[in-house]
Amino acid sequence: MAPRYAPSLRSRLAPLLFFLQLGLLVIYGNYIEIESNVKVHGITVSHIYPDFQDVNVMVFLGFGFVCTFLVRYGFSGSGFNLLVAIMATQLAIILNGIESWYYRGKIRIDLRSIVVAEMCTASALISIGAVLGKTNPVHLVLIALLEVSGFVLNKWLLQTLLKVQPLNSIMLLHIFGTLFGLMLAWMLYRKGSEQQFEKEKSDRKTRLFSMLGSLFLWMFWPSFNTALVDVSTPGRKLAAVCSTYLALAVSAVTAAALSVLSSPNGKLNPNHMQSCIIAGGVAVGVSMSVVHQPWEAMTIGFAAAVISTIGFRYLKFHMLLAFQCHDTCAVLSTHGLPGLLGWLAHLLLQLKDCDHHTMAIRFAVFHICTLLITIALSLFMGFITGLLLKLNIWRPTQDKKCFDDQAFWEFPHLAVRK
Amino acid sequence: MAPRYAPSLRSRLAPLLFFLQLGLLVIYGNYIEIESNVKVHGITVSHIYPDFQDVNVMVFLGFGFVCTFLVRYGFSGSGFNLLVAIMATQLAIILNGIESWYYRGKIRIDLRSIVVAEMCTASALISIGAVLGKTNPVHLVLIALLEVSGFVLNKWLLQTLLKVQPLNSIMLLHIFGTLFGLMLAWMLYRKGSEQQFEKEKSDRKTRLFSMLGSLFLWMFWPSFNTALVDVSTPGRKLAAVCSTYLALAVSAVTAAALSVLSSPNGKLNPNHMQSCIIAGGVAVGVSMSVVHQPWEAMTIGFAAAVISTIGFRYLKFHMLLAFQCHDTCAVLSTHGLPGLLGWLAHLLLQLKDCDHHTMAIRFAVFHICTLLITIALSLFMGFITGLLLKLNIWRPTQDKKCFDDQAFWEFPHLAVRK
Amino acid sequence: MAPRYAPSLRSRLAPLLFFLQLGLLVIYGNYIEIESNVKVHGITVSHIYPDFQDVNVMVFLGFGFVCTFLVRYGFSGSGFNLLVAIMATQLAIILNGIESWYYRGKIRIDLRSIVVAEMCTASALISIGAVLGKTNPVHLVLIALLEVSGFVLNKWLLQTLLKVQPLNSIMLLHIFGTLFGLMLAWMLYRKGSEQQFEKEKSDRKTRLFSMLGSLFLWMFWPSFNTALVDVSTPGRKLAAVCSTYLALAVSAVTAAALSVLSSPNGKLNPNHMQSCIIAGGVAVGVSMSVVHQPWEAMTIGFAAAVISTIGFRYLKFHMLLAFQCHDTCAVLSTHGLPGLLGWLAHLLLQLKDCDHHTMAIRFAVFHICTLLITIALSLFMGFITGLLLKLNIWRPTQDKKCFDDQAFWEFPHLAVRK
Repeated sequence: MAPRYAPSLRSRLAPLLFFLQLGLLVIYGNYIEIESNVKVHGITVSHIYPDFQDVNVMVFLGFGFVCTFLVRYGFSGSGFNLLVAIMATQLAIILNGIESWYYRGKIRIDLRSIVVAEMCTASALISIGAVLGKTNPVHLVLIALLEVSGFVLNKWLLQTLLKVQPLNSIMLLHIFGTLFGLMLAWMLYRKGSEQQFEKEKSDRKTRLFSMLGSLFLWMFWPSFNTALVDVSTPGRKLAAVCSTYLALAVSAVTAAALSVLSSPNGKLNPNHMQSCIIAGGVAVGVSMSVVHQPWEAMTIGFAAAVISTIGFRYLKFHMLLAFQCHDTCAVLSTHGLPGLLGWLAHLLLQLKDCDHHTMAIRFAVFHICTLLITIALSLFMGFITGLLLKLNIWRPTQDKKCFDDQAFWEFPHLAVRK
Repeated sequence: MAPRYAPSLRSRLAPLLFFLQLGLLVIYGNYIEIESNVKVHGITVSHIYPDFQDVNVMVFLGFGFVCTFLVRYGFSGSGFNLLVAIMATQLAIILNGIESWYYRGKIRIDLRSIVVAEMCTASALISIGAVLGKTNPVHLVLIALLEVSGFVLNKWLLQTLLKVQPLNSIMLLHIFGTLFGLMLAWMLYRKGSEQQFEKEKSDRKTRLFSMLGSLFLWMFWPSFNTALVDVSTPGRKLAAVCSTYLALAVSAVTAAALSVLSSPNGKLNPNHMQSCIIAGGVAVGVSMSVVHQPWEAMTIGFAAAVISTIGFRYLKFHMLLAFQCHDTCAVLSTHGLPGLLGWLAHLLLQLKDCDHHTMAIRFAVFHICTLLITIALSLFMGFITGLLLKLNIWRPTQDKKCFDDQAFWEFPHLAVRK
Repeated sequence: MAPRYAPSLRSRLAPLLFFLQLGLLVIYGNYIEIESNVKVHGITVSHIYPDFQDVNVMVFLGFGFVCTFLVRYGFSGSGFNLLVAIMATQLAIILNGIESWYYRGKIRIDLRSIVVAEMCTASALISIGAVLGKTNPVHLVLIALLEVSGFVLNKWLLQTLLKVQPLNSIMLLHIFGTLFGLMLAWMLYRKGSEQQFEKEKSDRKTRLFSMLGSLFLWMFWPSFNTALVDVSTPGRKLAAVCSTYLALAVSAVTAAALSVLSSPNGKLNPNHMQSCIIAGGVAVGVSMSVVHQPWEAMTIGFAAAVISTIGFRYLKFHMLLAFQCHDTCAVLSTHGLPGLLGWLAHLLLQLKDCDHHTMAIRFAVFHICTLLITIALSLFMGFITGLLLKLNIWRPTQDKKCFDDQAFWEFPHLAVRK
């Protein structure tokens, strides 16, 4: 019963994890210290702790359980997500602190820097959604580390070259993660996957687990968007929470309506109720700093749900046929398109507020450059990562073992019947 | 395999949702703005945010996953709950702000007003528990909107006519929701449902999902009861949290004991361990403003669990036979009876504290009027809603498709076996 | 189909629960009052409320759902956990307050005292993990009450005799709970359990529920360790949160690496990814007051994961053969060994910081006495409890009904097929 012929990862995964973790331990031991100031930017631990835990729940539980919908891949979906998210977060804490290390010799961490690192991790988790089930955990760890490095580089480039605000550059994580993931999915394309993979299926119970993950993402998205909003301007924080909340509400209703409308039998598609309901949160997150009115947030939420649902219904299949890019969790529709819409909304709303033509044009040029750099870097990093992963030394999973927990997990006392 | 003959909701649900959501968008665009004061009633965003998220989790995840116990209806239980809760919350925000709109032309929203709106929504979700599985999503949206309107009207009447405190009038949500739901269940009675519906069953796994929802309700009930308690009197808040906690503890133990005692085989009934454990929280919520001592809270919790468990064991079936009222989630025992007990406890505790006879009688009259208005309005609104829903234009589900996800959801890649 | 011959608990469980709960109610009524001071130790309700809810979620949901991995015992795992945790917490609140009752005649409770009580409860829940499935709920309630009494006694002894800090004495809960549970498992050993119990199996879905519980424990462990850290020194709190976070991260990665390395097929063991990932949190919790540097926390996390994973792989089976001790949830590897490691780390780090030899030796003697008292008391209490439970009046479960919900729960409308 045990699939003996699935390639053993013993000689790959274990040394990789040990080597990386011990390397990280040495770096942390030498260069990282815990912030000793009681207040950083006027924020005490009590203020940021609830936000920190909400983001924690989203990254480790939300993203993980969203990936449990595959009937035979639930344990990998949630387990590998945990593993990969931890590696990526530890790396992101270091990478985000390089500048401070350069000037002071030490990197100081506090809850805020962990939250920033977990957001960078979220971008890696989005990428992984595109290749989930067709890769092994060695691949996933490498993807996560390279993606996070690329994303932090992109953030640094935008902040240094174009003076983009930190929060705005972090929120591009949806666009960066999606394009990186799609490039990777294209590179790692397997012949014959136009016919569905044998085990790429779901059942009622696994869908409920996945719904649980989606609900956690949906409920805590206001925390995700606003965890880094400056608390010393609480009005700003309240506005961001309310905007995200309203956008999420509108996009859930819109996704349901469009799902019914586009179905031949007038039925809801469970995928839409899981993925497209968060489109509004994604789009508002990207454009948050210029959204001030409820109607702006709601309109963005509406538009995001429309493109997300339509993208989900029609685009996933065409991406596969036209570009030979198999996108397991449909990250293009869930994060990519709403992210791009948020970028566009940011541009339009900012232009609306500009008094002078010169300022408007100046902003538009900067804003378009921001997007172009992000797209170029994400595609480039995805390409490099794809080249690396195509090497056979990582022992890729065979087609027959795709989307199957049994290739990676031993289930000793599994009840045989039922 | 796909039930082609289930009536398509394409021409009903999609336009309804679009129309309502766009209507809400227009109203929000014109009349709603986000509070710009940093402190409202001395509460900053940081103070109320954890409570806000707890209530969020209860309304969207807790109430949703409690309804997943039906073996073939889990996706509808949680998915429709999300949809309906969002619509109701958006409407409740507007309705709660009508007075402020009347005087100032604008409705200002903050986290507190969203919490109030979500509590109104909870009352609609209770109603829906009574008719779950026998209605389609179009019905559910209409029920939710009418119920919330009725509840806000009731709240306004009580506050205006009888000077009931806002928190006390909101906490009547359990009584209002239950009676509205029962009236509706009676109106929508289907012949032959004394024999169980074919698919009204549960299995081990769906019960665990449902247990998860119950646990979230149980754990966060102190937040539900106290989210609106004035933070400027923290002693009051602590007392409310501790009272709710103790009442919940006692009612969980009592429910388990009574469940074993009333079972012929001396076994626990899973329904009791899911529904009746929150009876204490419901009852203390209704009487919270006069509960000061731990023993009061614990006695209320004990009594609430007793009537809830006994009601669950014997009443559900007799309601069906005697009144032809099929109450899917047994909301009468879970919310109705404990709510009424809380009302009674409020009366008795207040009378105990009164020094003068005249004051006592005055309070008793007011308190009884409060209940009578709530009962009358809830039954009336339930009757009206029932009349509306009996119209055939909403395409009711056939008996054979009751409690079945496949009537409303398309499951494209469902694993056939297992 | 219903197992008629499973002994009915009607005449045991119901009176026990009623008697205990009414007794607690009387005690609470006479001796307990809710704290009326707005600030206790400088902490307001708002400050501790998020921590309180996190610990709540861990104790009632986390520990409960971790125990759902057994395919036929999920409902008992989560349901009995709730019941037992409530009883134990109510008792612990009283026991922790005895001193204050002695001096002031009343016990004042606030959120902090509930958190302390829930931590004592966690120690009972660990014990129960060792005997889960082989005991009935009457046993479990008795175990929990005796264990909590023993733990509070131990805490009091350490604080009184050896002047151990309250937080340090509470954190010994892992060691106390494990040894109590192992002694109990040895006392209650059933002949023939070297062959696996018939129903001690898991399946994919129940493992996912269990993974959910593990994730909640893992994510909220920083709250568990730091809920009682003094907020008036926020720097201390931040350091404790970061240390726990880093230790958890390292131990999750290490557990995965070792699991692959020690598997003949190079596969991950789901048990390791669920239990051993929290080893770092346990170990850092015990040694928290002397861990100041990130590398210390990470090294402790690494070592904890190593002994926990190796213990899980090899020790569980040998414990059974050599000591006739069947440890259902492998609490020895999950809580016991990491707890002892934490104790050792505390000793070593403290010695490193000592300037004088005399102080070092003095501390070492005290620290070793702390451990010896804890071990002696836990084994003794476990022995006494075991003797009590071996009495036949509690109607122990037959071997055939071990690990089976149907012995204790009635499932009225269970879907027969599927």
